[in-house]
Amino acid sequence: MKKLMLLAALCAAPALADEGMWTFNNFPAAKVKAKYNFEPTKDWLDHLRLASVRIAGGCSASVVSPDGLVMTNHHCARECIEGLSGLDKKDYNKDGFWAKAQTDEKRCPGYELNQLQEITDVTKKVQDATKDTPADKFNEVQKATLAGLEKECAGDNTEVRCEVVSLYRGGRYDLYKYARLQDIRLVFAPEDQIAFFGGDPDNFMFPRYDLDVSFIRIYGKDGKPMKMDHFLSWSDGSLKEGDLTFVAGNPGGTSRGLTVAQLEDDRDYKLPLTLYRTSELRGFVTQYQERGKEQKRHSNDVLFGAENRFKALKGRHAALADKNFFGLLAKNEADFRAKVKARPELEKQYGATWDNIAGIVKKLQAMRKEYNALEKGPDSELFKHARGLLRYSEEVTKPNGDRLKEYTDARLPQFKQQILSNAPMYDELETALLTFSLTKMREDLGPDHPVIKRVLGTRSPAEVAAAAVKGSKLKDLKTDKTGNPIGGFRKELFDGGKAKVDASKDTMLELARAFDAEARAVRKRFETEVEGPLKKQQELLAKARFAVYGDSIYPDATFTPRVSYGTVKGYEENGAQVKPFTTLAGAFERHTGADPFALPKSWMTAKPRLGMDVPFNFCSTNDIIGGNSGSPVVNQKGEVVGLVFDGNIQSLGGEYGFDESVNRTVSVHSAALIESLDKVYGAARLVTELKGSAATKAGQP
Amino acid sequence: MKKLMLLAALCAAPALADEGMWTFNNFPAAKVKAKYNFEPTKDWLDHLRLASVRIAGGCSASVVSPDGLVMTNHHCARECIEGLSGLDKKDYNKDGFWAKAQTDEKRCPGYELNQLQEITDVTKKVQDATKDTPADKFNEVQKATLAGLEKECAGDNTEVRCEVVSLYRGGRYDLYKYARLQDIRLVFAPEDQIAFFGGDPDNFMFPRYDLDVSFIRIYGKDGKPMKMDHFLSWSDGSLKEGDLTFVAGNPGGTSRGLTVAQLEDDRDYKLPLTLYRTSELRGFVTQYQERGKEQKRHSNDVLFGAENRFKALKGRHAALADKNFFGLLAKNEADFRAKVKARPELEKQYGATWDNIAGIVKKLQAMRKEYNALEKGPDSELFKHARGLLRYSEEVTKPNGDRLKEYTDARLPQFKQQILSNAPMYDELETALLTFSLTKMREDLGPDHPVIKRVLGTRSPAEVAAAAVKGSKLKDLKTDKTGNPIGGFRKELFDGGKAKVDASKDTMLELARAFDAEARAVRKRFETEVEGPLKKQQELLAKARFAVYGDSIYPDATFTPRVSYGTVKGYEENGAQVKPFTTLAGAFERHTGADPFALPKSWMTAKPRLGMDVPFNFCSTNDIIGGNSGSPVVNQKGEVVGLVFDGNIQSLGGEYGFDESVNRTVSVHSAALIESLDKVYGAARLVTELKGSAATKAGQP
Repeated sequence: MKKLMLLAALCAAPALADEGMWTFNNFPAAKVKAKYNFEPTKDWLDHLRLASVRIAGGCSASVVSPDGLVMTNHHCARECIEGLSGLDKKDYNKDGFWAKAQTDEKRCPGYELNQLQEITDVTKKVQDATKDTPADKFNEVQKATLAGLEKECAGDNTEVRCEVVSLYRGGRYDLYKYARLQDIRLVFAPEDQIAFFGGDPDNFMFPRYDLDVSFIRIYGKDGKPMKMDHFLSWSDGSLKEGDLTFVAGNPGGTSRGLTVAQLEDDRDYKLPLTLYRTSELRGFVTQYQERGKEQKRHSNDVLFGAENRFKALKGRHAALADKNFFGLLAKNEADFRAKVKARPELEKQYGATWDNIAGIVKKLQAMRKEYNALEKGPDSELFKHARGLLRYSEEVTKPNGDRLKEYTDARLPQFKQQILSNAPMYDELETALLTFSLTKMREDLGPDHPVIKRVLGTRSPAEVAAAAVKGSKLKDLKTDKTGNPIGGFRKELFDGGKAKVDASKDTMLELARAFDAEARAVRKRFETEVEGPLKKQQELLAKARFAVYGDSIYPDATFTPRVSYGTVKGYEENGAQVKPFTTLAGAFERHTGADPFALPKSWMTAKPRLGMDVPFNFCSTNDIIGGNSGSPVVNQKGEVVGLVFDGNIQSLGGEYGFDESVNRTVSVHSAALIESLDKVYGAARLVTELKGSAATKAGQP
Repeated sequence: MKKLMLLAALCAAPALADEGMWTFNNFPAAKVKAKYNFEPTKDWLDHLRLASVRIAGGCSASVVSPDGLVMTNHHCARECIEGLSGLDKKDYNKDGFWAKAQTDEKRCPGYELNQLQEITDVTKKVQDATKDTPADKFNEVQKATLAGLEKECAGDNTEVRCEVVSLYRGGRYDLYKYARLQDIRLVFAPEDQIAFFGGDPDNFMFPRYDLDVSFIRIYGKDGKPMKMDHFLSWSDGSLKEGDLTFVAGNPGGTSRGLTVAQLEDDRDYKLPLTLYRTSELRGFVTQYQERGKEQKRHSNDVLFGAENRFKALKGRHAALADKNFFGLLAKNEADFRAKVKARPELEKQYGATWDNIAGIVKKLQAMRKEYNALEKGPDSELFKHARGLLRYSEEVTKPNGDRLKEYTDARLPQFKQQILSNAPMYDELETALLTFSLTKMREDLGPDHPVIKRVLGTRSPAEVAAAAVKGSKLKDLKTDKTGNPIGGFRKELFDGGKAKVDASKDTMLELARAFDAEARAVRKRFETEVEGPLKKQQELLAKARFAVYGDSIYPDATFTPRVSYGTVKGYEENGAQVKPFTTLAGAFERHTGADPFALPKSWMTAKPRLGMDVPFNFCSTNDIIGGNSGSPVVNQKGEVVGLVFDGNIQSLGGEYGFDESVNRTVSVHSAALIESLDKVYGAARLVTELKGSAATKAGQP
């Protein structure tokens, strides 16, 4: 991997490259104008932002019709597709889904979209609250402050989601208010074979041939498609190399502001440990799938998650392992420190920050195993529900500011939505994953740890897991036709409060209860000794950064709305030039007939009708990261020209820095979307709706 | 992990700690005398060496009776136990094995012991041969030289094994001549539940409660137990903290002589990649075991291997990740370089060596994936046989010096023994492992690599694997009652030579053939561009090391006979003192009834008869590493006081350096061996044989 890092905006002078996941209110419009002779106006940016939505589970999406039609990736709707399959005893992942009529659109279990309504700068309030707070109280005081601000924002309205987000790692705090859209229905999803054509081998690769799309629709309280003020128009499909492109979305997180001590921790401890565990889980689920067709179906999502995560993190580790790359990051830090040192007033305030952070990293390393094992906890949906009920019933008896963050008033609506989701669970898979997790817990803590002795006693992890799953009634949840919870054991416990939960001897609740005290204790220790002190130091670092580099810089990604710019552009790899477009013909050339290189029957049948020269996927220099999946790619007119679904393998180092020479966003071309909807799936209704928006240009500023 | 590294002998002044895996002819007897007031004489050392044997598969062992009785670990005989189970349709691993009468002892399939007969210093011949050889020819010329020396040593005698070993990484070359003992029969093995009590969670841990022993017997050509001139006497079982102990064995390999560039490669590339793969395989086999009882049985050995390897390598990586530890290794190198630099004649000869090695490491990194994928090749026994036959038939048509190393005349006897071994194979497991390997090959090389396109074509890895296993007749091998091959397809191909092999369309042969050219090519590239040049640089480094530090230093481990000294000693861990002995009582306290903490029935039944205070396992400061498994621990009288079977978790960093404060060898106490043989297994015949040697003191010098 050739690495000519610029890393400019975060750590040095203003970026020269198409670098940055910019906040909408600090977009470098003048720079774009200078480089590309096009300057997005405030209105232009506002429209793009308002037509974008976030998928609570961790993806991006865009509104593409006035009737609430939303475009995202197939892999961003997997949870919905998988859930509906379980409820309907179908395999929509394998066979695809298409609601011929609008009335056939099906509500996704436990699925939520967030639509940003308002951003308020609360920096002063947040920073002032902890101005004189000692490090070990920092987290507590800040948590209470944020809980108060979020509560104030949301009030008793469960239809909104309020979150204070720390930008620039404590340099700025913004309060985001989102509308929570929970009646989301599946409109269209192609077969997994074409959505994820090439499978894990081609994941994070380019050239690529994937129709990684799904269409969903937002429904209102009235049970009708929601009318949208802002939506993106469809382009005419013309897009050529060098064209300027914008990506709006919610990049989940980056680590470009980490210190070298933190980067070393990522490289030597955090990433390796996660990678070992993820690759073991991957092998485990790969063989679990051999148990049978149904087991394969219901574990597909877990396997996809493990493989995707493994490849992404492996790429990150490889970036840090690269001595040149790491050396450049270290040099950036050295330059920054030198600049601080050169100004006595800065040195006095910020000079010790790097060493302080290094000290906190050591504390983190000392508690990481226990924290991960006990608090990140077993990898079972049923267990998560059990712990959720246990903690929820306890936490809500406390004042808002004293609660664990996820149970503060402003966050309870999401919690409720998750705990009362009717997404199906499978005893066999739950048992297998819980066995795996308990075995790993024993591995990490050792068989002599008091929690392990108490939880396992005279039994094996497999025995404990089987008993906990078999005996639990937490699966029991009754919902109405649209997925609203109306009864069942889980709902009774949720509604019943602490007395009811405490009285229950449900086997999974008992398991969660068995070590909740220790889990809470290690979390407390983590928050007091690591998280709080780190936040305090990072605030200082952010201030130092503003002082040295000014404020024309972008913050690390935070799963909040960002916009990046770039152009359609190929790159060089192993001495050869990679072209920025692929065509439908390429998919047929790559088809071998064996998964993951087997095109679905629908495509083989439609082949004669398809335009072989229609562009399929393309790559561009936009700076994105995980969480941007499902983002729209728009042209200067703000029209949809593509749908982001991946980055190339070189983009994985983007966690730590952006290398314009090779880092590429990978998208489905808008023309391929129309071509396949029309000629493979006969989805005329959908094509009309999409093109309709092109025709009317409605919603354009 | 507290790390107070001394690393003295390899890189600095003579060792102060009990450090070093010493060659028998360079043992620091005077230093031992000074520290412990006991000086092993040459006779004493010779006897210990001559009573030690090596297990070709990768373990150590000792002769413990005049009638060829050999003691090693249970895990060193797993291959034999597993193989016999398959042949007899029994589960000796689970149930244990005990030959009540000598005639019940069963020959281990494909098992070989090596008994060292002679060591010849061939340094001058080897170094002179390549004195003026350019780096890219170095490997070729040296390989031919070694093949010639080994051939000269072995002649046409297939009963010996001759190997030139590079000590001090090229500082000295010794020619080792071993007798090959191939009629090895299983005498006794306890149940896996007690041999590996605590399983993976307790592996590399202390305190410990394992009876990790097996007894095997060497038989001669006459089919009778072989009479041995040298064997170890049994001690009276008295051993206390502080007692001096010696361990004789064959440590497999250490990396204490690596440069920092190589250590960084281990930390950032080599170890992580291996760990990802190993942990995935572990998860894969863990779930494979769920297919059923027989599948569990026949995959136990693969799972044990993966788990053991994973834990060992993870420990190594953790040692290198430790900044203090790595810093000390870096400092040692800096000191060494400074000492070279200080002497102009040394600087001129050796000053560039470190940078040269760093350059070679980069080349290695660039070809590692392809080398591993193609040449280290699929993880299937059947595939290995196919490739072996293919290459063997080709290589033997070439002059000895031109062949791949493993097919040179002196090494052919071992090859023959392996390829005609009747160790059982299981289609289902072979198919699963081959599927896994082909999937990983595609992952490493990418789906567009010509080998992947050719091998897979329009099929999936699973389809290719299933077809190759199902269609192959390579399993077909007929043996007589003692395991000697007498016929069958595999033997016909082996005997038939190139014409016969070339004519065969056996499916597994075809698979091996499909990418043998590429595999050979990358190996050639590796040997020419990496291995040879590295050897040349390492020879220089070894010379520099001798010049700076003299020759009272020990070489990195090379799976050749070594001896280490130390004392029975506890250590500090997490602020608490770990005592050096455990007792039988401790095992019963640790028993939960659930694997891997379930004692076998035989032990539960025998409990009332067992002395609860009998020492079970103990730890000592001897410096060992993987390969030392099965080594005898002897006292000053040269009597058996224990059986090495593990190191503690802190010993894993021993790959790179020895830390006497916490690095411990873990052994079964001789008293526990006698107590359990006598009172659990009623193995009176064996106890008498072992104690008989104690009584007569035969074989003592």
